[in-house]
Amino acid sequence: MKALIFNNEEGLILKNDYLKPIPQKDEALIKVSLAGICNTDAEIVKGYMGYNGILGHEFVGIVEDVNSDDKSLVGKRVVAEISYGCNDPECPWCAIKNYRHCPNRHTIGIWKKDGCFAEYITLPTNILFEVPENVSDEQAVFVEPLAAACEITEQLHIDPSQKVAVLGDGKLGLTIALTLNAQNLDVTLIGKHENKLDIAKNQGVKVKLLENAEISNNYDVVVEATGSVSGFETSLNLVKPRGVLVLKSTIATGKELNLAPIVINEITVLGSRCGQFGPALRLLKNQRIDFSSFISNIYSIDDAEKAFNANKDKDTIKVLLKF
Amino acid sequence: MKALIFNNEEGLILKNDYLKPIPQKDEALIKVSLAGICNTDAEIVKGYMGYNGILGHEFVGIVEDVNSDDKSLVGKRVVAEISYGCNDPECPWCAIKNYRHCPNRHTIGIWKKDGCFAEYITLPTNILFEVPENVSDEQAVFVEPLAAACEITEQLHIDPSQKVAVLGDGKLGLTIALTLNAQNLDVTLIGKHENKLDIAKNQGVKVKLLENAEISNNYDVVVEATGSVSGFETSLNLVKPRGVLVLKSTIATGKELNLAPIVINEITVLGSRCGQFGPALRLLKNQRIDFSSFISNIYSIDDAEKAFNANKDKDTIKVLLKF
Repeated sequence: MKALIFNNEEGLILKNDYLKPIPQKDEALIKVSLAGICNTDAEIVKGYMGYNGILGHEFVGIVEDVNSDDKSLVGKRVVAEISYGCNDPECPWCAIKNYRHCPNRHTIGIWKKDGCFAEYITLPTNILFEVPENVSDEQAVFVEPLAAACEITEQLHIDPSQKVAVLGDGKLGLTIALTLNAQNLDVTLIGKHENKLDIAKNQGVKVKLLENAEISNNYDVVVEATGSVSGFETSLNLVKPRGVLVLKSTIATGKELNLAPIVINEITVLGSRCGQFGPALRLLKNQRIDFSSFISNIYSIDDAEKAFNANKDKDTIKVLLKF
Repeated sequence: MKALIFNNEEGLILKNDYLKPIPQKDEALIKVSLAGICNTDAEIVKGYMGYNGILGHEFVGIVEDVNSDDKSLVGKRVVAEISYGCNDPECPWCAIKNYRHCPNRHTIGIWKKDGCFAEYITLPTNILFEVPENVSDEQAVFVEPLAAACEITEQLHIDPSQKVAVLGDGKLGLTIALTLNAQNLDVTLIGKHENKLDIAKNQGVKVKLLENAEISNNYDVVVEATGSVSGFETSLNLVKPRGVLVLKSTIATGKELNLAPIVINEITVLGSRCGQFGPALRLLKNQRIDFSSFISNIYSIDDAEKAFNANKDKDTIKVLLKF
């Protein structure tokens, strides 16, 4: 089968004769229809996590077979949570289906598990979710980043009278701002690109250009979605004393970073990663968010290299891969 | 009067003829009896906060006069919270007596207010607390750092079945470990110095030498009290996924710091600074903590330079100044 892999020797490379995977017990064989490129994929290509294998963790596909007596999923259109756990009866994380913190987890296309940038993927059935009929592939393919945005209110109670700012108007910041807005929270998206801000504005989100924003410790909750040290520092200047700074992107500081404001203003910095798919699929089913305007390009898997280059373009929001 | 000041021109210098302050409306004139050197004082001498003036914010003293009709405090032995606010009726922080977050606050010996390393200090009566009779000056002088340790449970609910680690066996870590232990929490103090760990051990705290500690993400709550980047990184490796890392000391990273583990493990980093004096005075009154073994030296104010040098010694816990 065709598969887009990354390894240390060859870099990013499309293989046309990759071995089609065989589902193990309680696993499904899924034919991938559409997949999304995430910035984490771009980071992996630069060496992040030391991952070698098929890339990709955002997809929608159709179940072709299940290795189990229960074949009810065959023919169904599905999405899959990003991680699956050890399912050891003594694992507290697997017991609550929070596989993403299981210490022996596998994470699709990131850690100990081949990804979805291929014609086929095999996955345990317990992380598959059927896509509601009224949700198109082009919307469903966004469910993983949408779930990551839903994770914020899974971790943190935000009072609807509180002021929330999201800093960064890339696909991460846009998704978070739309998601919080869809939960009736008082959210303002702050970014540098008018064209990107407009995507959120058109769906009812308050937006501000960074250059016009008042940076004066006046938001109860600030979500950092730029992934940069300067964004982290601006976030510390946006959040009120005793407020919450949600850290949504992995930041490695190459320069000096002063953590003193966290202590002086008694800020809570809340790390937030992936989320459960249930709430995300509810938002899609009820059409509370429309991802159409996120899609910058759709490439065939044969043009994967072009797709990765397009993803680097600063005007790009989302690049999809079609199989 | 004698006063130990710091300014950019002269550095740290003892003045023998500093003008005795005059209490303004609703202020008390306090004769300082005993004061403590905090590492923040040492940082200020290196330029922290750009402060110029009388140093010091930990003290116990006796009220000599009050500029108000109510003279009931005269003759009383008192301690004072570290900050006072604007008291503007519209200030939400002053309304809840949380003066330390008032944007127009004054902080004794740190920000816009002369400190307590002097024979006299004037302070608003609303931040003064009478010292219980059974609490000696040598215990009462520790109330400010003790209140800062009490702040942790003011901000964070710690379930008594949770495992708590305090990293760092300096005076900050020792005070925090003893304070959490005095609240019947399951706390382990981890440090590098057997002699310092013994101070906590002798009062019933579990202790571990860092070299023998298991660093495997197995504490629900970790309090970082080393003030170093490496301590911050070790804390991230001690805390469980979705656990809480309490940041108690101001860290400025001069080197690269990777914040990715905060996101990947969804850690809550909770900045924590000063605290209310009420709970701290209750702990002292009920003799739940004994600070006697913290006192390394007591110097006369005339030997202030010696005192600051002694504070740098790695075996020193606490240096006090007598007036």
